Amino acid sequence: MKIAVLPGDGIGTEIVAEAVKVLHALDLDFEMETALVGGAAYEAFGHPLPEATLKLAQEADAVLFGAVGDWKFDQLERHLRPEQAILGLRKSLGLFANFRPAICYEQLVGASSLKPELVAGLDILIIRELTGDIYFGQPRGRRTAVDGHFPGAEEAFDTMRYSRPEIERIAHVAFQAARQRSKKVTSVDKANVLETFQFWKDVVTEVHQQYPDVELEHMYVDNAAMQLVKAPKKFDVVVTGNMFGDILSDEASMLTGSIGMLPSASLNAKNQGLYEPSHGSAPDIAGQGVANPLATILSAAMMLRFSLQQPEAADRIESAVQSVLAQGLRTTDIFAPGTTKVGTMEMGDAVVAAL
Amino acid sequence: MKIAVLPGDGIGTEIVAEAVKVLHALDLDFEMETALVGGAAYEAFGHPLPEATLKLAQEADAVLFGAVGDWKFDQLERHLRPEQAILGLRKSLGLFANFRPAICYEQLVGASSLKPELVAGLDILIIRELTGDIYFGQPRGRRTAVDGHFPGAEEAFDTMRYSRPEIERIAHVAFQAARQRSKKVTSVDKANVLETFQFWKDVVTEVHQQYPDVELEHMYVDNAAMQLVKAPKKFDVVVTGNMFGDILSDEASMLTGSIGMLPSASLNAKNQGLYEPSHGSAPDIAGQGVANPLATILSAAMMLRFSLQQPEAADRIESAVQSVLAQGLRTTDIFAPGTTKVGTMEMGDAVVAAL
Ligand SMILES: CC(C)[C@H](C(=O)O)[C@@H](O)C(=O)O
Ligand SMILES: CC(C)[C@H](C(=O)O)[C@@H](O)C(=O)O
Repeated sequence: MKIAVLPGDGIGTEIVAEAVKVLHALDLDFEMETALVGGAAYEAFGHPLPEATLKLAQEADAVLFGAVGDWKFDQLERHLRPEQAILGLRKSLGLFANFRPAICYEQLVGASSLKPELVAGLDILIIRELTGDIYFGQPRGRRTAVDGHFPGAEEAFDTMRYSRPEIERIAHVAFQAARQRSKKVTSVDKANVLETFQFWKDVVTEVHQQYPDVELEHMYVDNAAMQLVKAPKKFDVVVTGNMFGDILSDEASMLTGSIGMLPSASLNAKNQGLYEPSHGSAPDIAGQGVANPLATILSAAMMLRFSLQQPEAADRIESAVQSVLAQGLRTTDIFAPGTTKVGTMEMGDAVVAAL
Repeated sequence: MKIAVLPGDGIGTEIVAEAVKVLHALDLDFEMETALVGGAAYEAFGHPLPEATLKLAQEADAVLFGAVGDWKFDQLERHLRPEQAILGLRKSLGLFANFRPAICYEQLVGASSLKPELVAGLDILIIRELTGDIYFGQPRGRRTAVDGHFPGAEEAFDTMRYSRPEIERIAHVAFQAARQRSKKVTSVDKANVLETFQFWKDVVTEVHQQYPDVELEHMYVDNAAMQLVKAPKKFDVVVTGNMFGDILSDEASMLTGSIGMLPSASLNAKNQGLYEPSHGSAPDIAGQGVANPLATILSAAMMLRFSLQQPEAADRIESAVQSVLAQGLRTTDIFAPGTTKVGTMEMGDAVVAAL
């Protein structure tokens, strides 16, 4: 088994180092190889996703990813910016199924901006389609408008699109995930306005015929954005497209107050996967040794479970994380009076000790 | 001056009746004419936006709109569903500038799902472009995919597009609104992924040159969805496209805990406008006399200010609403122990009495 380790930019290197430390401590038989990605790769090789990095990722069973991006790359042309690396990896590896849990950790309920009773025990799984939609749809670009409100004016455009098999496969993923949980799926669309999402709703409804034991609810994206704030615990598995999933999964993870704790997995049809924390590269605190490595460590656990067939090792990591939280150890982002503030490395060491 | 009154479906008729009562009580010189719209119009005439209703709206100086929609119309073909009326009105009247305030009323802080300190004093103005973007972009439809992940498969697609003049005019609206407030605009885009929103960002930045006294900040939509939850008071004026505005304005209004209190205005270049509450038709409580009419009454105040050049009358209504809240009167949706529960009509009567 081979893991491609891509730390990236900002706090990426610090948090990935802790996850790698935890993986080593498990004493399992896999190979890890590290490569540059994002801004770091641009600075070294002139491209955020160099050929060698892509090749390593393609040949590995799983990719452990940190985070990419920094203000200093904002002025680059779009195709050279750090985030193109993550879009390129998703596309090249065909990582169509993105799992983003939004869990509110018992010990961190107070960190949520929502009232405690609304988030205590929260455990949502957002399943976002990750290789289709308006993210990759062609044609796109700039041109002179031939119709619309201002014919003759300069305009920019993108294409939203979903094909039947793309919707079918992500719907299967969602219904199967729901079977392991409370057997309820909320499919989020905008069928009242978009052709793409009327089709989405139709196809999800068809696939649902094969899962009579799972309850299916349809919800418009604007309503979902509201219900997440109003009563997040009403959700269990949420499945949606790439664009809506981007927005709703970030909203949901911030609701928990635990965004520094939330892992994510992006899988393809062969269960190859890319694993990364839900948070970003946080250039403002990079290099200070204060970032929270737990989301990345928990991403490594997801990797062991989904791509490396090591569910017991995954369980061990997750229990170790529970145990460091129970010991009262906290990085700055989740610190509260009465707990013990620790740095990135201390937190990683504590997880290793708890294994 | 002529007002087209379109109550619509569900609680629409009840709440609009109260706003009309308040308008009459002002004793100003304008004509009001009522017509069916939405599901009610479909049932009577076979179309959610009959010719006569559209003509009335076009000829009026302003439209006072209730709400449309009911589960029973869910099975209709899309072009006959109630919400097509609102899309049709926006398009036909050219209502490109949608103003959606997200205000947390002092007396209702406790109703928010956010912690009180995060929402007390909240006052955001979301300015959503309303006639462009993927809502109206052509081409759209179903077809056989010729490329993408599954060539040959059935697919659905929509076109996102914005032209320069469309972005320029909404940017001007936002910067001018910011001059009346705290001189800060957050423009929300997804320039890291979409051509349309890279163009949006570029054009907003250009228009900003004409407003050196206003601060401009750019934010990605996924981050905006998070920051609204984390620290909503950091926002003042938010300007964004039709699709992102749909999602973020609903999220923001729900944050306030006062969605039953929030009005909205949709204006065209001639200051003709459509005014409606931010909430929906709530078919579950329709006909019971319990709906909150205040958002509609406050929408009538916006109408007086923006389309009918009666700012003093608008002020009078807004003060009257403050006063009924101060008296402790509450409809069910905003009721809390220690306040007095009233019905829709009683609330309308109380506003009239307070005028
Ligand atoms: C960096 C960006 C392109 C990316 C996305 O929009 O998918 C990010 O927001 C995410 O959610 O992983
Ligand atoms: C009813 C629907 C078409 C509409 C929209 O998406 O614009 C509504 O959600 C709104 O925000 O006014």
